[in-house]
This record gives sequence, C-alpha cells and structure tokens, in this order.
Amino acid sequence: MKGVLLRRAPAARLVDLSHAIPPQDVLTAAFVLLHAAREFPPETVHLAVVDPGVGTRRRAVAMRTRWGIFVAPDNGLLGLVAAHTPSETRVIDSPELRADRLSPTFAGRDLFACAAGSLAAGFAFAAVGPLVAGVQPAPVPPPSRQAWAVCGQVIVVDHFGNLVTNIGAADLPGPRDRLVVRASAAPELRGVLRTYSDVASGEALALVGSAGLLEIAVRDGSAAARLGLARGAPVHVFHV
Amino acid sequence: MKGVLLRRAPAARLVDLSHAIPPQDVLTAAFVLLHAAREFPPETVHLAVVDPGVGTRRRAVAMRTRWGIFVAPDNGLLGLVAAHTPSETRVIDSPELRADRLSPTFAGRDLFACAAGSLAAGFAFAAVGPLVAGVQPAPVPPPSRQAWAVCGQVIVVDHFGNLVTNIGAADLPGPRDRLVVRASAAPELRGVLRTYSDVASGEALALVGSAGLLEIAVRDGSAAARLGLARGAPVHVFHV
Amino acid sequence: MKGVLLRRAPAARLVDLSHAIPPQDVLTAAFVLLHAAREFPPETVHLAVVDPGVGTRRRAVAMRTRWGIFVAPDNGLLGLVAAHTPSETRVIDSPELRADRLSPTFAGRDLFACAAGSLAAGFAFAAVGPLVAGVQPAPVPPPSRQAWAVCGQVIVVDHFGNLVTNIGAADLPGPRDRLVVRASAAPELRGVLRTYSDVASGEALALVGSAGLLEIAVRDGSAAARLGLARGAPVHVFHV
Repeated sequence: MKGVLLRRAPAARLVDLSHAIPPQDVLTAAFVLLHAAREFPPETVHLAVVDPGVGTRRRAVAMRTRWGIFVAPDNGLLGLVAAHTPSETRVIDSPELRADRLSPTFAGRDLFACAAGSLAAGFAFAAVGPLVAGVQPAPVPPPSRQAWAVCGQVIVVDHFGNLVTNIGAADLPGPRDRLVVRASAAPELRGVLRTYSDVASGEALALVGSAGLLEIAVRDGSAAARLGLARGAPVHVFHV
Repeated sequence: MKGVLLRRAPAARLVDLSHAIPPQDVLTAAFVLLHAAREFPPETVHLAVVDPGVGTRRRAVAMRTRWGIFVAPDNGLLGLVAAHTPSETRVIDSPELRADRLSPTFAGRDLFACAAGSLAAGFAFAAVGPLVAGVQPAPVPPPSRQAWAVCGQVIVVDHFGNLVTNIGAADLPGPRDRLVVRASAAPELRGVLRTYSDVASGEALALVGSAGLLEIAVRDGSAAARLGLARGAPVHVFHV
Repeated sequence: MKGVLLRRAPAARLVDLSHAIPPQDVLTAAFVLLHAAREFPPETVHLAVVDPGVGTRRRAVAMRTRWGIFVAPDNGLLGLVAAHTPSETRVIDSPELRADRLSPTFAGRDLFACAAGSLAAGFAFAAVGPLVAGVQPAPVPPPSRQAWAVCGQVIVVDHFGNLVTNIGAADLPGPRDRLVVRASAAPELRGVLRTYSDVASGEALALVGSAGLLEIAVRDGSAAARLGLARGAPVHVFHV
C-alpha cells in the first residue's frame, strides 16, 4: 500500500498511525482514527483499511471534513469521525482511483491506496464519485442514561491494557467524587479520578482519559489482565 | 539503522515495510519484500536485513532491478525478487559503503544501512563492487506438479493467520471449482474460491490471494490458529 | 502525537525508533534511545515518552547534546544519553511549548510533542525554560567490579531475546578467552566470543554486542526463552 501511495503521490510524507489494530477490529480502528486524525494538519489524507468485507459489495468512500479527507471502506470505520464533525461523503467511483486489476482480497492496495494517493496528489474531491448521505455508524451502541446511573461498555482495550468505555465525561451521572464505577464482576471503584498516579502502583481506578471517555486502568499495570475484562464488558456508573 | 541512512542520505524519505518478520525468518522477509517492493517507484532503494549469518563470510550484495536497488545479505532474502525480474548483482566491496569499524553482530547498522544510504544519495551502482552471477535462491522448494495434482507447502503465515503456500495460480491442476485442497491433517476444502466472504464467518476456505499464490484462510479468523498449521505444513491440491 | 508534531513542524520528517518498548519500561527506552540517537544527524530532535508519572509533578525537560535535542519526562529516560555525552538541560516552561489544555493522562500529546515540534521548527533552545543541573540517572546500578570478577545484571531483553547486561567491554576482568560468564542459574558460559555464529545453532554464548555491552545470546534462538531469564537477572563474570 505504501508503494502505491508513493507512486501516485511522489511528494507525500507517509505517517503510520498504528501497527496494533487487532485483525478485523473495525471499532478499535475507528477509535484510533478519530483521536489521531483530529490532531493532524487539515490537508492530511487519512487512509484507513480494516476490511472484513473485502471482495463484497460494501461501499468504498472518501469523506471530506475539517480534519482532512478520509478514505476507507464504509463499514463503520469512519463512523466515529462522522459523529464528531460535519462531513461530505462520496462513493469512490472514478476509474482513475483504482488499479487496472482489482484483487478480490486486497482492496487496500488496489483501490483504497490508489484513491488516497491520488487525492494526496491533488485529485479533485468532487470527481471521486457520487455524493451519498453519510457513512455507516461505528459498531458501538450509545450508553444508556438514567437519572442516577449510566450503563455502557468497554469499547477499546489500549496498548497499556486500559479499558476505554463508551461513556463520555458529559454522561457521568453526578460529581466525580460521588460516583461508583462497576465493570462486570470486578470490584467497585469509588470516584472518577484525575490520573493514574492518584492511586498506588498496582491499584485499579476509574478516570476520564485523554479521549474524554471514562476508562478503567491499573497504575503501572494492565487493567485488562488484572481484572480479566475485554471489549464488550458492561460498565455501570452510579451516583451515591 | 535509520540514523545511519539519514546521515548518508539527508533528503531520503524512510518507509517501514514491516515490523513483524519473525527473528531470522529469511523466507517470510523474502516474501514480504517481493510483494511490497514491486509496488514502489523504481528509484527506491530497498534495504532488507534478516541476517542469521552476521559476522560470518556470507556475502553482502546490492542488486539492481526495474523495481529499484536492493541491499541485503546474500542468504536467500533477495531470492524471490531475483526469480521474478531480471537483475544485476554486485558484492558490496567499496570501503565508502561501510562504517570505519564493523561490529561482528550488527552489519545492518555498519554495512547495509551505510550502503543503502549512499546508494540513495547517488553513489554509482557500478562502483559498489564486482559483479556476481546472481543471488542465493529463497529457501523454498518449488511445488511438485503431476497431471492431476500438485504438492506444495505453507511458506508464510501472514498477520491475519492466513496460510500462504508456494503453489501459484498457474500451478493449479484444473479448473478452480473442480479442485480439492488438503492441508496436512485439516479437513479437505472443496474448490478454490474468490474471496474470504465466499464462506460463512468462521469457516475455512482456499483461495488465490493477492500475491497470486494459493492460500488457506478462515473468514474473520486465523487459519493458523484454527487449523493448527504452521510454516512447512504440506498442502496438496487434487483435480476431482 | 504525530499530528501535533506535524502541525507545529510542517516540514519535519518523522522517524519511528521503536514500537516495542514494554509499557512503563523506562530503562529499555533509555537504552534504545542512546544507541539509536547517536547515529542520527545532529540537527535531530529526539522525542521520547515513557511516562509512568504522567499527571504528577515530575519535570518535563529538553536536553541539548552533540547528538541533537532530546525532549522527555525527567524520569531516567535521558539518563543513559546524559551519561555518554555532555549536555545542557532546561525545564520545559514556556507556555508556547504546550497545548492550551493539558490532559492529566497524555502529556505526550499535550506537552512533549508540542515542545518537540516547536523545537524542530526552530524555537530557540534558550527560550525553553530555566537551566537545571542535569537529568535523573537511568534506573540501573553500575556493575560492581572486583579484581577477578565483575557482577552486573540483565538490563534489556531485545527483540531477538538476547540478554543485554550493564557490563561494558572495559569492565571485563581479564582477556576474553579466560572468562567464565554465569547468568543466574543458567549453565556457565566459557569465554566471551565475537559473534553468534561462533557457536552451533541453538547453543548459548556470551559476547560483547553492538552496544559495547556484555550480552548473552542463543544462536538462531531466544536466550530469554531458552534460559528462562528476564531483566534483573544477576550476571557474574569471572577470570579463570
């Protein structure tokens, strides 16, 4: 894919965002993409390929936002970005944006990298293909909120073993020091704290992480390993 | 190695091809190199170092092809590229292409990166060192073909757990829907299909992958883990 | 972090040094940083963030050396570089070198990448903040030397499973062929050899590696796995 990008956009600088997306994990990729992409210069072309439906009729899209242009399969991968900023989406349809022959198993090389490379080299966004209403949402339900509680789930386990949830800071049902966080069968955590070192080394805590989401962590350790939790684990926050 | 490259070729752009070659695995590196390198602009210098014989008298070579110049130990790492395109090979001999002192354990830094950096900065290929007849072949036997069958083996397990074999599309002993694929003791697979989603999630299939080689995969899963197979596993394809 | 760097230094080239530092492992990062950084052009800005104390009052520093400027938390991460070359250190204090809002859990993004990007774009080192006496030493004790023996420990396990110790070539208590190396309860190794292929495939050996440090390795294998040793394992070298 990098070779294709450089042939189409010889002056482009290539920047790797992550080498650690688990295979087929659209949601983790969507999360990484949102939180990385919004830091980049607005002229960036973001290429993201996690593509379990390769070879099927799932759409290939280019999406223009204030954070740059995103090129990806339309399978939820762009859902978090689209939920956070206005966007204009086109189906990739121009024959100039693909290789002469399409492998049925590697659209990353034969379609997405071609399109991203050409867009980086100045191909007009308006010529990509027909406008569509929007992209597929990310495969994550919103948390359910009640007056004194909110119920969500772990959506991403990061490199450190931190358990990132779909519960945003604004979803929290009360002041942070009056909350209790219960993740699956793990021991209850009292309070939503500020940073890892608010507890002793090896202890678990809840905090609002750098993505603005509630996260469960173990200082100097892996919450995933220590608490035995993985993606999808239910997380409840109560006001007490 | 990247520092050495940038000191010798201050304007070069460095592009990482893979961080996932298993230690000492010359064959996987040869495979990744072939399939990545041919996509790059022809002025690329490809630096590849998997070097179990570091510190011995194995040759260090630079090989010029239509896909650019390759710099590597001559241990099979360039064998697949050389088998796919005409090449001209020189032993790296010029004292300008090495560090003043050679570590007996890190020729990647003291020799190969020096040579690749200088070549990227314009050092004349003809001045590298004496011409040699060719490079070592990759450490993989060709498949054995009979009228109604072909026998090969798994040569690479990719990031997704797909089992890539040494059996090319042209080696297949009949029309794809009349073939049966048997990989070691795993259940027989009927037909060579087009893409992963031709079977249900979790099911195994055989297909011709994006490298043009027969591959055994599990949709949305790892064939290596599911079938318990690794590199070297025998694979037979029969016409029925 | 890469997005922040490129917004502050649009012309910078980003070079990844390692994707394999274990979480919170300041010593491995310090080791990788020392041995990589000294190969780079002297105008390089080296950004290193392994930051278990994020959100606490640990200092953030920029350190100028003949190998370029280093930006990092002052937790030992710069200790090996500082021990090997003269340096001038300033606390990062200028409000221009941080984001408007500082996350208490991701100073890499909001502080260190801002400072490194601005320094790469030409921000004056003298304006970073007040000079300080130096940085924290790396969290590794020196080896203890006696007339006929030296006692140290494994400080880094590298990608290949090689066990790198804190014992330098100059610490060795005699000629290399008259030494015996004992690592924890592993079988004694006779002699300090030149390179991996000085023993048969699968055998263990001691050698002085490319960093100038005594290292225990297994040819074509992982010494860590084979000998069951990890960081901190005691290593003794005797003159016999």
